[in-house]
Parts: sequence; C-alpha cells; structure tokens
Amino acid sequence: MGSLDSNFPENPVSVPEFKPLDPEDFRRQAHQMVDFIADYYKNIESYPVLSQVEPGFLRTRSPGSAPYRPESLETIMNDIKSDILPGMTHWLSPNFFAFFPATVSTASFLGEMLCTAFNAVGFNWQASPAVTELEMVVMDWFAQMLKLPKSFMFSGTGGGVIQGTTSEAILCTLIAARDRALERIGVENIGKLVVYGSDQTHSTYTKACKLAGIVPSNIRSIPTKIDNFFALSPALLKKTIEADVADGLVPLYVCATVGTTSTTAVDPVEAIANVAKDYGLWVHVDAAYGGSACICPEFRQFLNGVDQIDSLSLSPHKWFLSYLDCCCLWVKNPGLLVKALSTNPEYLKNKASESQSVVDYKDWQVGTGRRFKALRLWMIFRSYGVANLQSHIRSDVRMAKMFEGFIKLDPRFEIVVPRRFSLVCFRLNPGGSDPQKTERLNRKLLEWLNSTGRVYMTHTIVGGVYTLRFAVGATLTEERHVTAAWKLIREGTDLLLEEENVFCLEG
Amino acid sequence: MGSLDSNFPENPVSVPEFKPLDPEDFRRQAHQMVDFIADYYKNIESYPVLSQVEPGFLRTRSPGSAPYRPESLETIMNDIKSDILPGMTHWLSPNFFAFFPATVSTASFLGEMLCTAFNAVGFNWQASPAVTELEMVVMDWFAQMLKLPKSFMFSGTGGGVIQGTTSEAILCTLIAARDRALERIGVENIGKLVVYGSDQTHSTYTKACKLAGIVPSNIRSIPTKIDNFFALSPALLKKTIEADVADGLVPLYVCATVGTTSTTAVDPVEAIANVAKDYGLWVHVDAAYGGSACICPEFRQFLNGVDQIDSLSLSPHKWFLSYLDCCCLWVKNPGLLVKALSTNPEYLKNKASESQSVVDYKDWQVGTGRRFKALRLWMIFRSYGVANLQSHIRSDVRMAKMFEGFIKLDPRFEIVVPRRFSLVCFRLNPGGSDPQKTERLNRKLLEWLNSTGRVYMTHTIVGGVYTLRFAVGATLTEERHVTAAWKLIREGTDLLLEEENVFCLEG
Repeated sequence: MGSLDSNFPENPVSVPEFKPLDPEDFRRQAHQMVDFIADYYKNIESYPVLSQVEPGFLRTRSPGSAPYRPESLETIMNDIKSDILPGMTHWLSPNFFAFFPATVSTASFLGEMLCTAFNAVGFNWQASPAVTELEMVVMDWFAQMLKLPKSFMFSGTGGGVIQGTTSEAILCTLIAARDRALERIGVENIGKLVVYGSDQTHSTYTKACKLAGIVPSNIRSIPTKIDNFFALSPALLKKTIEADVADGLVPLYVCATVGTTSTTAVDPVEAIANVAKDYGLWVHVDAAYGGSACICPEFRQFLNGVDQIDSLSLSPHKWFLSYLDCCCLWVKNPGLLVKALSTNPEYLKNKASESQSVVDYKDWQVGTGRRFKALRLWMIFRSYGVANLQSHIRSDVRMAKMFEGFIKLDPRFEIVVPRRFSLVCFRLNPGGSDPQKTERLNRKLLEWLNSTGRVYMTHTIVGGVYTLRFAVGATLTEERHVTAAWKLIREGTDLLLEEENVFCLEG
Repeated sequence: MGSLDSNFPENPVSVPEFKPLDPEDFRRQAHQMVDFIADYYKNIESYPVLSQVEPGFLRTRSPGSAPYRPESLETIMNDIKSDILPGMTHWLSPNFFAFFPATVSTASFLGEMLCTAFNAVGFNWQASPAVTELEMVVMDWFAQMLKLPKSFMFSGTGGGVIQGTTSEAILCTLIAARDRALERIGVENIGKLVVYGSDQTHSTYTKACKLAGIVPSNIRSIPTKIDNFFALSPALLKKTIEADVADGLVPLYVCATVGTTSTTAVDPVEAIANVAKDYGLWVHVDAAYGGSACICPEFRQFLNGVDQIDSLSLSPHKWFLSYLDCCCLWVKNPGLLVKALSTNPEYLKNKASESQSVVDYKDWQVGTGRRFKALRLWMIFRSYGVANLQSHIRSDVRMAKMFEGFIKLDPRFEIVVPRRFSLVCFRLNPGGSDPQKTERLNRKLLEWLNSTGRVYMTHTIVGGVYTLRFAVGATLTEERHVTAAWKLIREGTDLLLEEENVFCLEG
C-alpha cells in the first residue's frame, strides 16, 4: 500500500511535464473508474456488509509518508481492492438495514459528477449565476411537491437553500432566531435564552445549540413516552416553557421532528406551533428522514401545521435517492437568515449583489464557498419524475410492512413501537424471561447477525427497552433481501435459544 | 427546460418497475457523462469565462414544477448545454484569474467519484473503518510534507481532520477554545471573551465568531498597513490585548493568516504566537491558500513558529489540485475538540468507540454524517507524488512572476503589493491623474476585460487603493494564457486611455 519512497527533496528525480487535467487522460481514467464502480455495484452482495476489521488495520499497513514519485492508477486500484474494500462497511449493500440506509441513484451520481466537474464556486450569484438560480428552481419544485405553503417558496415570500447536513440547517436557523432575540433583550442576556426539543430529538440539536452559545443548562430535553409513541407532548412543552418564563428566562427555539432517528416518531407539528406562537418561539421542523415520504398524499398529514412554523429541513441523502451530503432547508423569512449570516468583503462586491435583485447563498450558510449542489436534485427530479419518486417511497414502506408481518407471525418476537415509515422496531422476547435477560438475548442476537457479514442492523434503547432496528431503504434492496434477512434472524434466534436452553439445562 | 407535466397525482401514469441503481444503466449513463465532461474540458476555452447572463435568466425559463413523468438523459443533457452552460462562470477555464482560482486534477476527480460511489457515512470508526483510518493516514502524510511537528500528527500527540471549508475549521477550534475558557470563568461570562484578527483576515472569521456567541463588539480587527505588506503587527496585537485585559475582558483566540484573500499577506506566525502565549490565547493559523506552497522548502519559512500554535487549517481545494470541498485542519490537542463537540446517542454506541482505541470523527466537526473525504487527497498524493506537487506550485509561481515582469515593464502600470505566491496585485496608474480618476480608470478597465468573456479577474481595495488582482492557478492555465491576458489588458488600456484622451480634448 503506497510506495516506500521518502518524500524528502534530497532525493529528486526528473519527472515529465506535469499536466494534472489533460482531457484525454481524464477521459481514459474516468472511464476506468466508471467500470470499477459499476462492477462494485454489481458484486456488492459478495462483500460482508459490516466490515470485520480490527482498529488499526489500515494505518499499520500504510507507509509513513506520501510517495515522492507518481504511482500508476493500476497500482492504486489494486490497493483499493486489497486494502480499502475490506475496511468498508458497504452502505449501499442491499443487506444494509442499519441506522437509516442511504438511498442513492444513477441520476444523483451523474449530477454529482457534473457538479464536481464544473467545480463552480457559488458563494454569490455572480460567481456562477446558474449555480444559484438552479438551486432556487429545485427548492421551489421540491416545496411544491411537499405542498408547502407559498410562504416557503421564492415564488412566494420565502425560499430554500441546500445545506450539507441537518446540523448546519439547525445551526443557521438557530443563529437567525438568536440574533433576533438578542436585538430585543441585549447581547448580554444570551445566557437567558432557552431552547426546546424532546429526548428523541437528534443529538446534533444539542450540539448546534452549544455551538450557538446557548448555555447547556438551558437546553431542554422533554421526556417522551411509549404511550405517545415517543412524540413530543405539546402540553409538556407548554408547561416547561411556562416554568422557564416564570424563572425570568427567554424561550427561543423549538425543534420538532418528523421521523426521529431511534424510532421514526412524529412530533405533532401543528400543536407544537400553537404552543410556540404564544411565546414567540422560532419553530423548526427536522424532517431529515420522514419528510421525503410527504411527497405521497398518504403521508402528507405529518406536515400539517407547516404553515405556522419558521423553518423546515429535509435530507434527500437519507430517503430521496441523493448521495451525501444534501440537506434542504426552507425558511419563511430569509431576511433574518441573511441578517445573521451575511458578510460583505470588498473582493466579493459586484453590481448584481448591490442591485439586490439576486440571492447570494453565502449569506444563507455557515461557510463562504459552495458547490453546484442543485444539480443532483435537479437530475433526480427530471430523470425520475414525481411518479417514480412516490413509487420509490411506497416500495420501501411495502417491504418494511412485509417484515413487520413476519415479526408479528412469530410469537417469540414483538414490535416495540408501531411502524410509521420504513423502519421496524422490534425485539426478541420469548415469554417468561426477565428484562435483563431479554436485553442480553437481543444484544447477542444482534452481535451474531452482524458477525455473519450477511446483514447489518443496529439497535436503540427507547423507554428503557433495548430495541432492534430493521431499516429498509438501501436502494438495491428487494423483497428477497428482506426475506433472507428474516430467515437469518430466525436462524440466529434458533441457535441462540438452543444455546440458552442447553445452558439452562446444564446450569 | 423540463416538461410541462403537472406533478399532481390526479394524473397518474403507469411507469415500468423503478430501478434507480441498475449497474448496467449506471455504467452506460456514467460513461456518457465522462465523455461530456472530457469534451467540456477540451473545449472550455470556447466559453466566455464570466457568464454574461442577467438575473432571472434561468428561473424564468424553468417550468414551475418538477415533471411527473421521467425524462430521458438526452433531453436533460440538451438542457444543460442550452440553459445551464450559458449561466456558468467557468472556474476551470485557463483564462480564469479571479479570486483564488480552483486547482483540480484527474486524480482528485477519480477520488471524488469513488467517495460518492461508496456513499459510506463515516461518523464513527465502526460505521466504515477505512473512511476514518485513511483520513488519519493522509492527514499524517500531509503534515509530514509540510514538516509540521509531531504534536500535530496522530503518530505524535495531535491529529488532523478534513472539514468542508475554513469556516468550519475556525468554528470548531473556536468552540474548543471557548469551552475551555468558559470552564474557567463560568458560562455567564461569555460576553467577556475577545477574539483577534487583522483587517485582512477572511470575512468568515467574523462570521464564525458571531456563530460561536462572541459578542460582535468583542471581535477585534487590527488595522494593517502597506508598509508592512498588510501583515498583522504583533506589537499592535499585544497593545490591543493589554487594553482588553485592563478593561476586565478575557482574550480568547487569535487567527493569523498565511496568504490573505486580498493580497496574500503573511502574518508573522512565530511573533504572534509569542504574544499570545503570555495571555493564554488559542492561536489558529488560516493557511487556506498559502499553506499548500509550504510543501516547497523555499516557502516553508512562512510556517515558522507552527510548533507554538494550537491549530492550522489549509484548503487543498484552493491550490492543491483538489475539487471542492476540502479543508484540512490539524490540532495539537484533539481532546479539547472532542470535549466540545462530542455526542453519544444510544443508536451510535458500539464496542470500538467504547474501547477508546479509535477516532470517531463526528466529534471533530459540526455535523454528524460525513463522506469518505480522504480518498481525494490520497489519490492526489499517490498519483502525482511529492515531486509533481512541488513542481505544480512552482509552475504557478513562475507564471505569476512572468506576469509581474510584464507589469513592471509597462510604465502605465504599477505593482501595489509585492508578490509572494501566485497572485499579482497591480493597477493602472498613468502619471498625473488624481486618486479618484485612477480608481475610475481601473474599474472601467476591469469591467471591460470581464465583458469580453476572454478573461475573468477581480479587484480588492487595500490601504484605500483600488487594486486589480491577477491570480494564477487554474489547472489548465499555461504561459500562453498569461501572455494573452496581458495582451488583452494592454489592448483595453490603450482603448481606455484613448477614450479618456478624446474625452479630455473634447471636454
């Protein structure tokens, strides 16, 4: 892996003229890479889903320094096969049922190639007008597919922007909300600001709040319950806000989730917005996973109340066929975002910006530089059309339903939380066992399953219950993979229970 | 551009089974895209560098909604040619001399293709071990090439991470510094923290400080002067810090720059670190542009004193042949970063993390999810070797020197700031004119140059002087492009001065 050349200039060699972007070299090598990738996708089931390597596997076999002389693409590709691939967990494997799987597509890949190829930096409109305008177009298209109100569209009074991840979307809106509040109460009172979420809100929310200077003890994590399917209770939210107001604190921001990471719980957006309104809170909806489903009429209800919120984010890299990173953020009042995040150095000044007739996306995000992010979504929308996108969501949900049916038919298992989208939360619970033993059994089952390399699943703990998560959504997953996974789960269970039995008899 | 189909489900059509990642479809379409891109690079000089479209050009010709039915790749590619390309500013054109040009390479493109193809999410080690370990390897390789001390390497006591942009690198280290300080002085004293930079520090620094909750009035922008080539004065820094301490404030963080955006000024790292040491400030060096040159012994001096700083960032997407986004951050004390940025939700818990024998990069950055970012740099290092990378830097510097020579030979022009790397700061200054007239002349010249579509250059204002920037660095730029640009500048100058003359005679 890598040559053993030292990279010290004491050992100079003459190299031919260096042309790092010769179009014909590019063509030849990129074609090679396309074939490598297509073959990888074709054979992806032959790799263990979860990498079985030990910590240090790659570092120990890498040389201590970069080579001084160039190496051939063939050498490098061989190292990828022999050294990198074994260390990969194959997120695109049809047998990947962990976390939320990553849905991708050929159209998205093509969009990404093109985005990379142009390497256009769209910090402001003038730096590459198409970068900005296509983003405005696709964000409005997507808003329309989700039936968002006009107040979130450029064709109305709002607008959308593509961020990298939910973390950035939350951070940017939080800063906009914070600065609006500080203008009212004075910057010296930043320690009085309080933010709200549930104990199921994504961990990045707490992190974003800390980044924004919210005092950690003012980050409220409202407890949820299984009776309520782990949704944030508007009544508890109201009670918590009232207690804070009574203490002289200033409620700032609440994050509601449509499809939590642990169990895909859905917070009641409308009721939360109603509570928040009375206290002037900024309401953000994190629909990173669940939002994509809302392009289907049967799921759109989960966004009811969206007309009363301030911002909404949704990550197409989760369930909308886009490769990483892609998080769509819509805001009702872009002016607040721009006010909090704008910069105006001399070297970026230009007539278009000064005319205020254009959007300069650098003022909608953390960084300055930005890629031609809209191409991927635009390729997805146009290559597939809404018809296929809806059918993609429904197909995943259908497979998850099928798996749920398998669980329900086997009395040794139980569903822990009712399924909403394409994630099934279940556990092995053979009667008569105590809670600790049940947890141990499920841990052992999961460990065994993942050690086979034939599936990858993950767990969570909700309401104190150790729960297995079966998340359908990898793009290449078909019914036969779900069925095979279920067979493997039963096989593992049989082995495990037999072992336990023997152990009991022996014990 | 786009079909006129409505995307409402009232108009359903039957579509064939939807397979968004069929390997053979992928292969065929990705090959098509490779040829499109290779042809684009081959013909890139035929496009006007700076897009000449008007605001709204693309939005007005796009339909109001995404299509309901799929569209063919051919239709979409035709729209790219007819509607997108005219709206592009071609950052990879050899005639692009604006901002800092973006250097790219075939190796980097291949690495990016592979990164996209795997779509591995490397939030922690276990999620895909190779993602984390290769990043550790390349960050140590790069550190070694820059002759950073072991205290910044994993093989020593520090470590590196790939961020998206400098903004994130600064934000993360600032938060680490902030939280360390707040632990000492109490969170209620966040309003006392003061941060330092020069009036040449990148605009994103102020933004990052505001994001982190630093009171805007505590962000010090220390004035620089032409006598000092716009570098931050350690004496002035010391004076400013002392005044703040006397006022009961708490100095927190100073950002020194190696290669500022306006003029590539270099702040004296060692002297700044010496001042900072006495007051316990975190010292960050932003070497986004200039850092890459430091792989050549003749530039390494600009990093002298790096052993005394806390963190260093450098963006290979600027001058190290990497496509966007890629910013390398090294820190001396990763523990402080992790302490400030770690999260630990149940669904991400795993044995490797609990053993503390691995790096979980989610705790080194703003977001949770992250791509296989190391592949690009690894492909660059191995495909080219240090020999070619040094020769690439030197070739750009040589071309900038050549341009500087042209300027010096024409008495109508002057160099505004001595050249350090591959940026030349100059202006047209025909004798006898008043400052306002000189500025107007230069504005007109720049406008004329960019309107030809044959070059793209930008400006800055430093020390009150309106300055033209000629930044060499686009990967495809050869000497003939620099010579042609100079000819064009002279042609424009002749026209302009003739016009001015006529105007004077007529007036």
